[in-house]
Parts: sequence; structure tokens; C-alpha cells
Amino acid sequence: MQKSMNLIIDHGNSAVKIAIFEQDRLLVVERYPLLTATIVADFMSRFPVKAIILCSVISIDLHTKQYLQNLPVYFTELTHHTPLPIKNEYETPDTLGKDRIAAAVGANWLLPNANLLIIDAGTAITYDLVSSENTFLGGTISPGAQIRFRALHEFTGKLPLAEEKSTDLLIGKNTIDAITVGVMQGIEFEIEGYITLFMQKYPNLSVFLTGRGSIPFVAKLKNPIFVELNLVLIGLNRILTYNVQL
Amino acid sequence: MQKSMNLIIDHGNSAVKIAIFEQDRLLVVERYPLLTATIVADFMSRFPVKAIILCSVISIDLHTKQYLQNLPVYFTELTHHTPLPIKNEYETPDTLGKDRIAAAVGANWLLPNANLLIIDAGTAITYDLVSSENTFLGGTISPGAQIRFRALHEFTGKLPLAEEKSTDLLIGKNTIDAITVGVMQGIEFEIEGYITLFMQKYPNLSVFLTGRGSIPFVAKLKNPIFVELNLVLIGLNRILTYNVQL
Repeated sequence: MQKSMNLIIDHGNSAVKIAIFEQDRLLVVERYPLLTATIVADFMSRFPVKAIILCSVISIDLHTKQYLQNLPVYFTELTHHTPLPIKNEYETPDTLGKDRIAAAVGANWLLPNANLLIIDAGTAITYDLVSSENTFLGGTISPGAQIRFRALHEFTGKLPLAEEKSTDLLIGKNTIDAITVGVMQGIEFEIEGYITLFMQKYPNLSVFLTGRGSIPFVAKLKNPIFVELNLVLIGLNRILTYNVQL
Repeated sequence: MQKSMNLIIDHGNSAVKIAIFEQDRLLVVERYPLLTATIVADFMSRFPVKAIILCSVISIDLHTKQYLQNLPVYFTELTHHTPLPIKNEYETPDTLGKDRIAAAVGANWLLPNANLLIIDAGTAITYDLVSSENTFLGGTISPGAQIRFRALHEFTGKLPLAEEKSTDLLIGKNTIDAITVGVMQGIEFEIEGYITLFMQKYPNLSVFLTGRGSIPFVAKLKNPIFVELNLVLIGLNRILTYNVQL
């Protein structure tokens, strides 16, 4: 008997990730510049999808939205009203990034009843805590590498635009190197700093690293960490399963 | 007998600092929105100025420039051709910020023949090294607090604009707090990280902290540091004296 499958749509600012889960097992992830009904139809024809979740930071066009809503399967869109399998202590859930709460649910699903730090490095870098009571506690937000480079270039009016690059330089002897090292090394200090700080405050803390921007730092970090680039998708799949069962 | 005095003009992007030194002693610092001939004339009438140095990151208007050049005292403008009392290993001196080299000269003047880390926190944060051979080695550049806040707001299109604030929160339970803590704590990790890293690499390293943006971090740093908010002015005075004596 073929098992039922979940379709996960994670629409960011610049791309959409579409994934198929067979229960808790991630089968397929594909990336597209934009979500269209045709792309969804293609997935529906290839896999026996029984439930769909949409998580989008942008407004999906009406045609695609109606197509999703009219499919003969369970469909839900993640909002701050969506029931979650973890408690949420955030005071302003309506301004809590959907990717932040999804990554937190994903980490809690992989490692329940544990103190967790989830570091998601994208346009922004978020550092979020989930307690061993399965509660989202909140976190901190800092700029990601790319927008740090842009800020130095655009907001100073005189510094050149450097770009993300792994480097073993300790200092720069020219301005591009000084910025490249300064931004990348600064983020490394920040990540290490939070891991050390939160490990002191929360016993037996486990650390998850996710987001494309985390890749340059994985090999450099001294503390043991879990690297799971699909944490948001895993969390969305968990939220979908939880809501189907309600 | 009245001693001769130096007039130091440090013109940043948003303000100009004008200082009077009696030899190595800083007597007066005043801050103005813009440099004018009238302001200079006022200083010339109040103090027996014998030499002037101008350090500007913007173009001074022609009238004021000519006024300065025609005064019957020694006048020099800091450029990448100006002879310096320290050696400079930077490969691209023409793109080396004048405030960076001036602060380095200032620190080396206060503590010669020593390994030095100079942290200057303004629009950007610069971390520069001067060796015990009195040589500027280069450094790193990262965004200051204000442009990190702006980057999160302007480059994500959804996060609010937070602002520089001292806080004892460990995490934010709302988005403004998450950003405030994230940016300020991140810079603290970065400053601590560089101090620790460079102390391991350079024996007996002394650390100077300068720039308005450094003030929120002074009390939080664990390592012993020298805080000298007039480091750039001290360096400019030293460069002026060195050039007058050539």
C-alpha cells in the first residue's frame, strides 16, 4: 500500500522550496524562483499528496492561492493563528517570523524535551531558544553576511562592496580583505559567543544550525552542533501533520 | 612665555571636531555641524595657533580651504602621501581610512614600541593592529550598530527599525527586543572575540577603544582596555608635530 504524502511549500523572498515528505521522511526538495499552480499540479501528479502546508513571507498570487484551496486534499497556510505542537511564549506572535517558529518546531521534533538553540543564517541571522518544556522562549536577530556587506557599502558612501567568502586571513592589508575578514570573522565570533553564553545558562543545550548562510561557519565552530539545512521544512511537515490530526 | 599651539580639524561625515593642543596636551575640543572660515578665524583669535592639520572624509568648500591655506601658519592636510611617524604595511594606503591611520598613530604615541589593537566604533567598526616595531599591520572592518539596525530594517522589508540601547536582556520575546539584543550582543561578542584572538597571537597586546559607538560596550568588556575617545585627535596632533619638525 502506498503511503500518503505531504507537500510542503516554503516561500521565501527570493525563492520557493517545495518538498515531499512520506510521513516524517523527506523524499524530495526542489527550488523554484516563484510558486505557480503549474508547479503544484506537477507535484500532485507525481506524488500521492494528501495534505499541503504553505508558509510564505510574500503574498501568493490569487490564482495560485485559489488553486491550492480548491484541491481535494487538506490544505493549510501557516499564520500566527495556526495551532502548533510547541508552546509559544513570544509576546507578539504576529511579528514572529514563520521560518523562525517552523525551524523551532523542526528542532523540537528531532530532539523533544531538550533545551535547544536554533541558529538560522539567511538574510538575517536568528538565534532562538526552545526549552525542555517544549516552549519557544524567543531569541535574537542580527544581520546576515550579505546585508552586512551591503550596509558597509551603501550606508558609508565610501567603502567598496565585498562579498561572502571563506578566508583564513586574520587581518586585511587592503580594504576589501579588511571588510571580508571583518564581516565573516564577526559572525563567527557572534555564533560562538551565543553558543557559549546559552550553554552556560541552559543545561545540556543542543545546538542546531540551519540556513544557507550557515555553511561557511560549519567547519569553524568549536562546539558540537547539529547541522540540518532542512530544519524549516521538517518543522512545517510536523506542523502540517499536527494540524491534520487535530 | 606662551607656548605655541596646534589646531586640529577632524571632519567626519556628519560633524567636525576642532581641537587645540598645547604641545601634547589637549586643551579644547569643540564640535560643529560643518567647517567654516568663521569658525577657524574664531579659534585663531582665541589661541596662539602656529600649525594646523585638516583631516576630512568630505570635500571642504573652496573658500574655507583657501582661507586655511592662506593663513600665516603651517598648514597641512592629511592624505595618503603625508609622512607618518609609524611605518605602514597597508597595500592600498589610498583606500585606508584617515581616521584609522590617525587613531593608530595616536595609540602608538601613547604606548610606543608595543603591540596594539585599536578598536574604533563609529558608522563602521574598525579593528586595527600596530606592532611593537611601530608598524601599522592592517585590520578588519565590520558594520557599526546603527547601520546593522538600518540593514535589518531596509534590506529585509519586514523587520522594524530598532535602535542602539544598552540592555541586560538575554533574548527578546518580541521582535524589537530580539533585534536590539541581537545587534548589541553581537557587537559585544565581536569585540571580545577580536581582543581574545589577537591577545593569543600578539604577546603583551594592549587594547585601545575609541569612537562614540564604543561607549555602550566599555563597562561590559571582560579584558583590560584603554578607553580614549580622543585617539584620532591625539594621532592627528602627533602627525602634525612630526611634519612640522621634518
